[in-house]
Amino acid sequence: MRKKLIATMVAISLPCFVMAEGQMGEDILSRNDLWVLIAAALVFFMQAGFKVFETGLVKKQHRAGIGAKNLMDWVAGSVAFYILGFGFMFGSSTNGWVGSGLMMGDGLEINDSFVFFLFQLAFAGTALTIVSGAMSGRTALIPYFVASLVTATVIYPLFGHWAWGNLLHADNMPWLASLGFMDFAGSTVVHSVGAWIALVGVWVVGPRVGRYDKNGKIQRIKASDYSYSILGVMILWLGWWGFNGGSTLAFNTQVPKIILNTNLSAAAAAISAMFHAIVFQKKSNVLEKIMGGTLTGLVAITACCNVVSSQSSLIIGVLAGIIHNIMFVVISEKWKLDDPVGAIAVHGFGGVFGTLCVALFGQQELLELPRWEQLAVQCVGIVTCFVFTTLVALLMFYILRRTIGLRVSPKQESTGAFFDSEEEDGEEDQDSTTGSNIVHHVSAKVSNRGYNVYTVKEYVELSMDFRSSWEAADRIQYLNEEGYVIPVESAQKQLNEMVAVMGSHTTSTLKRVRIR
Amino acid sequence: MRKKLIATMVAISLPCFVMAEGQMGEDILSRNDLWVLIAAALVFFMQAGFKVFETGLVKKQHRAGIGAKNLMDWVAGSVAFYILGFGFMFGSSTNGWVGSGLMMGDGLEINDSFVFFLFQLAFAGTALTIVSGAMSGRTALIPYFVASLVTATVIYPLFGHWAWGNLLHADNMPWLASLGFMDFAGSTVVHSVGAWIALVGVWVVGPRVGRYDKNGKIQRIKASDYSYSILGVMILWLGWWGFNGGSTLAFNTQVPKIILNTNLSAAAAAISAMFHAIVFQKKSNVLEKIMGGTLTGLVAITACCNVVSSQSSLIIGVLAGIIHNIMFVVISEKWKLDDPVGAIAVHGFGGVFGTLCVALFGQQELLELPRWEQLAVQCVGIVTCFVFTTLVALLMFYILRRTIGLRVSPKQESTGAFFDSEEEDGEEDQDSTTGSNIVHHVSAKVSNRGYNVYTVKEYVELSMDFRSSWEAADRIQYLNEEGYVIPVESAQKQLNEMVAVMGSHTTSTLKRVRIR
Amino acid sequence: MRKKLIATMVAISLPCFVMAEGQMGEDILSRNDLWVLIAAALVFFMQAGFKVFETGLVKKQHRAGIGAKNLMDWVAGSVAFYILGFGFMFGSSTNGWVGSGLMMGDGLEINDSFVFFLFQLAFAGTALTIVSGAMSGRTALIPYFVASLVTATVIYPLFGHWAWGNLLHADNMPWLASLGFMDFAGSTVVHSVGAWIALVGVWVVGPRVGRYDKNGKIQRIKASDYSYSILGVMILWLGWWGFNGGSTLAFNTQVPKIILNTNLSAAAAAISAMFHAIVFQKKSNVLEKIMGGTLTGLVAITACCNVVSSQSSLIIGVLAGIIHNIMFVVISEKWKLDDPVGAIAVHGFGGVFGTLCVALFGQQELLELPRWEQLAVQCVGIVTCFVFTTLVALLMFYILRRTIGLRVSPKQESTGAFFDSEEEDGEEDQDSTTGSNIVHHVSAKVSNRGYNVYTVKEYVELSMDFRSSWEAADRIQYLNEEGYVIPVESAQKQLNEMVAVMGSHTTSTLKRVRIR
Repeated sequence: MRKKLIATMVAISLPCFVMAEGQMGEDILSRNDLWVLIAAALVFFMQAGFKVFETGLVKKQHRAGIGAKNLMDWVAGSVAFYILGFGFMFGSSTNGWVGSGLMMGDGLEINDSFVFFLFQLAFAGTALTIVSGAMSGRTALIPYFVASLVTATVIYPLFGHWAWGNLLHADNMPWLASLGFMDFAGSTVVHSVGAWIALVGVWVVGPRVGRYDKNGKIQRIKASDYSYSILGVMILWLGWWGFNGGSTLAFNTQVPKIILNTNLSAAAAAISAMFHAIVFQKKSNVLEKIMGGTLTGLVAITACCNVVSSQSSLIIGVLAGIIHNIMFVVISEKWKLDDPVGAIAVHGFGGVFGTLCVALFGQQELLELPRWEQLAVQCVGIVTCFVFTTLVALLMFYILRRTIGLRVSPKQESTGAFFDSEEEDGEEDQDSTTGSNIVHHVSAKVSNRGYNVYTVKEYVELSMDFRSSWEAADRIQYLNEEGYVIPVESAQKQLNEMVAVMGSHTTSTLKRVRIR
Repeated sequence: MRKKLIATMVAISLPCFVMAEGQMGEDILSRNDLWVLIAAALVFFMQAGFKVFETGLVKKQHRAGIGAKNLMDWVAGSVAFYILGFGFMFGSSTNGWVGSGLMMGDGLEINDSFVFFLFQLAFAGTALTIVSGAMSGRTALIPYFVASLVTATVIYPLFGHWAWGNLLHADNMPWLASLGFMDFAGSTVVHSVGAWIALVGVWVVGPRVGRYDKNGKIQRIKASDYSYSILGVMILWLGWWGFNGGSTLAFNTQVPKIILNTNLSAAAAAISAMFHAIVFQKKSNVLEKIMGGTLTGLVAITACCNVVSSQSSLIIGVLAGIIHNIMFVVISEKWKLDDPVGAIAVHGFGGVFGTLCVALFGQQELLELPRWEQLAVQCVGIVTCFVFTTLVALLMFYILRRTIGLRVSPKQESTGAFFDSEEEDGEEDQDSTTGSNIVHHVSAKVSNRGYNVYTVKEYVELSMDFRSSWEAADRIQYLNEEGYVIPVESAQKQLNEMVAVMGSHTTSTLKRVRIR
Repeated sequence: MRKKLIATMVAISLPCFVMAEGQMGEDILSRNDLWVLIAAALVFFMQAGFKVFETGLVKKQHRAGIGAKNLMDWVAGSVAFYILGFGFMFGSSTNGWVGSGLMMGDGLEINDSFVFFLFQLAFAGTALTIVSGAMSGRTALIPYFVASLVTATVIYPLFGHWAWGNLLHADNMPWLASLGFMDFAGSTVVHSVGAWIALVGVWVVGPRVGRYDKNGKIQRIKASDYSYSILGVMILWLGWWGFNGGSTLAFNTQVPKIILNTNLSAAAAAISAMFHAIVFQKKSNVLEKIMGGTLTGLVAITACCNVVSSQSSLIIGVLAGIIHNIMFVVISEKWKLDDPVGAIAVHGFGGVFGTLCVALFGQQELLELPRWEQLAVQCVGIVTCFVFTTLVALLMFYILRRTIGLRVSPKQESTGAFFDSEEEDGEEDQDSTTGSNIVHHVSAKVSNRGYNVYTVKEYVELSMDFRSSWEAADRIQYLNEEGYVIPVESAQKQLNEMVAVMGSHTTSTLKRVRIR
């Protein structure tokens, strides 16, 4: 009441605007800027959270590798988003499809939008780093780095422009936003974009050697340190106070309510994921599900934290935890996508669900459109995001696979060494065979440092020319179920038999595999 | 001087109130709110600090378990404090004993107290998580989670109301605060409450198997990673800048002085604990004592950081370090309470000491009462806290022990698996006996997933009916000193002999243990 | 434009100063203070970053030891800087050489400079902790702690006064600052000071046993956990937002630009270090170079982040990454200085480079002097820092070495135990000999707990009296290349032979080593 009185007095008083703290003529930034800068720091800190979360979930040898990718995608984002990405996303819009200007920091000064830049950079970094976890353990550093550059330059900024392109230039009319699409802090714009790129990446790069046995049954790969992952969840949760709370771009009365909603959804999701895993999923992977459920609760509330009540936040969280658990199993066991940290379930499906929650749980007076129209537009955004992101990612990973190769060598995958020449190498005898002699995968050295892995079936269906030239160049290794190298002769004999069998059933151009 | 001048000018000027940053009609929160929100984030980050500190101190197999509890008590607190706890603590007071209203976020809007809620939630989380460390290694997740819910709903808010119940509603007259009890940032309200719950919990759940040998001599259990614990100390120290600095609830001139005092006390405590351990305690556990001493310095300054000088802060720290070292030994070796992370020494006795320091070191003009009266009132608060908290905790843990059971199974305790059904299980042969065949503990499966552990003496003193029914239901396992399972026949023979001996000395209703 | 309008209106309006938030008569601190306090917290958090970064790089047994040193140097700094250091650095200047006053927090109240104190304390802590990493693995805790006290009291504050002594008392005329030396956030004042102390410390304490073989060839020592180090880099990077961004001491428009520059330099350095290591350094230690390169980029931009463009920041980063890689190899392989975490390359040479960049890349209108004069003055500062710091550090470490000894015992070095009496000891048999019997090092027990290590050559050149008395007192152990203890008789026979040979070539007073 007292505040109201003051406000009224201000309204009727003479124009007596005062920059209270700027007494010394310095150009002091506003409290809003301070909050958004702090929020940017919290979101930047989420990089560490992702790194810690993911590191704990992969096996011991892959810890350093995933950490390096987490670091390098922030590096890639920092440079690429500065040079081009930010301009594409927030620059002056061309028909609502792409921005221009604001490249290389140009124009940030005029708009006084450095703080906004830092906040958005931290967001871009989040989208990028989601990919690293899903592809961890077998993806090589250089192609991953290139993919991060492309994502930060093209994929993230383009879709981002369609949904948020009017945040800086209020007169931009990005097409999705103009439809009325609402995604407050980026369930779709940030999280789903990252997850769908990860989805394609996981599919193209193939599973870790040994993840699925020859019958396609999932094999448990021991996490290096769950306790470390829990630290990651805590850091992420903290970072989300900034992620959602800072998305107001002002330190207004919405901020603490948003943080409260964020907190409630995460907590409710942790509880529902825990009990769901205990009661309905035979207590399997309970701790992983608590962690993933918590994060899904955070992702889900991201789109709608500013339009739902705190009671609804609890419900959203409960549902998010269950959705996570179901998708966790579906993705790894049904779809056989090897996502070691569960990123696709958390960010992809959590993102979709959260974006729908805007329409499902949002208070009508805060929505852009009547509820059911809003729901339709939310679906348009979700589908657009999926189609656009997966198509571009497919093109990107396909090119990388065909040129420099996406994977590390089988030996690097097993030892965790960064480069074949590294001194740490040589600990294991590369030619030693362990386990059976039955070919399960074929590893091809595509470029100087890049490898790809094929299932046997994929490999024999490649054109004869390809296979012959690779084999002639000594670029092929045959692996058994556990990833160990099989003697060449034995392996090629098996493949020839397989080609013979397949030849009689297909019209393909398959020929007998050359025996050297 | 210049500030004074300005203030005077304001005083005599016309009513020209200006919300300097609210030009656009938005409802911008104040700088005080911004500081308290940041402080809340720092205190929330202490959850991660506790998690990291505790994880490093427990043995390798228990790392994931303690991490899960740290996460789940924040989850429990987030939900329970929101639904009921906050209202009990800060709602409109009934005769100074309990608050009402403010449930489920109701009324936060009107009071514009969302930021206050978040800050207090982070405090509640701190009290909760203290318990996890002390009970780590053998407490099951579900009963622990239930205990966290009860603590966040009842124990913490009730005592909190008595001391701090007037923070939001200034016209509340909570009884302890009305006496003049001073506990600025919660040496008693937060830390001792957590520690006394932990004390009771540790006592009821019993020590980790193997912690004390059959003569009651303490056995060293290897910490998993001291270096990780040091990171935890650093995070906690940082978080304390918010814990104490934010307790002003305003960004006033007290804040940096409070942080300075906090820092000095912690540093002095680290030094005194180090030298005390080297000189007076035979260099045993020096690193654990440096860490625990530092934290005790932080806990001790918590109650009094706003009323003591920086020189006094140094003295308080020095004393805190020594108190920690003494209690560290007393609790584990004299009292034989198995507190793997030393939480009771740090938070319990550090909290008591800090609360006394208000009267002992506080500047008289800043105290509520004359020094000696103040000291008496501080003692009233300390004793009340101890009696109330331990009684309710005793009831709570007793009920949990009798219903769903508090402990994990002996096998889970040794492997660190979360649930018996988990796939990680089966690594060790459950029936294999290692070491002697002498019964040292008896493990009883109380509920579907809950176990309790008895010493042999406790077990044979239970009523015959209980024991018979448990044994008939195959719910009993007999363990040797190292926690391995002993063959049933051999064990029961030993127990029968013991019953026979005791029978001739006691008037109890003991009968021979049934041999199946 | 709107802002301009408002400013004009303020200028012409009546004196209507308003402390917008101070309505209740409380003394609310400014937004500048809030930002600097937050920045101080971020810089304090860098302590954790250093700890984590360094811990991951040392071998498993040394993790706890380095963590303890990281903690204790913050402790030392907190106390020593408060008691004397801050006054020497920022007190009223005596001829530009040393400050006085402000001891024990005295006068902080009057100047309202508590926030400034906390920010500067965090800076001092950074300089201190740089040393810990470089000397890790073989330095004893107590002498290290003493060195930290001396550094925080004398070395850091004195040089700091010369460069920054006018930050608090604007009428101080510190001599380097008066010449026009520019070091915005401390590439030289903080980072080089720490690094040069480390340089001397590494030289005086000697390499870890086993680091160089008898031909002086470097031996790989396995890092305990690279992934942990990456977390450290991320925390440091985040902390640097405060380190550089807070050095404005105000929340003005420079802040976000500075953070942008900081971020760009680090990212560019990561990329250049990665590719440089791959292309020009045979892919050796790529991950260590990415991490060290990133940090070097951060150190280099520290001096100049407020005077260079963002494009220049990219270039500075690229160069910093390459400088790091070159110095990384030079220091460890050419100079044979055993710096396990690469601190000297990062902070020493990164600091020098960054300080030069002020003149090389700074925008002329923002420099104190014409560009080439500026460059000359920057060189004066760099050289002064090197000469002053190394001389005092040499004196300090020499005294420590001669009195209480700098090193741990060979056994502690191999087990990582803190004190010989610790219970963890005894795991390895101290007298067992492994490997050859050829003497490579000689360990001398200098004091109760302190040891020094000599190369054989250094040892035989010591005066006969020294050697005899030590040997008589049973304070000498002879170690082979791997650090294992060699039987006394065999070792002394070798030394006598060596003395005999050297005796014929030198005019030294060497005599035959006494055989007991």
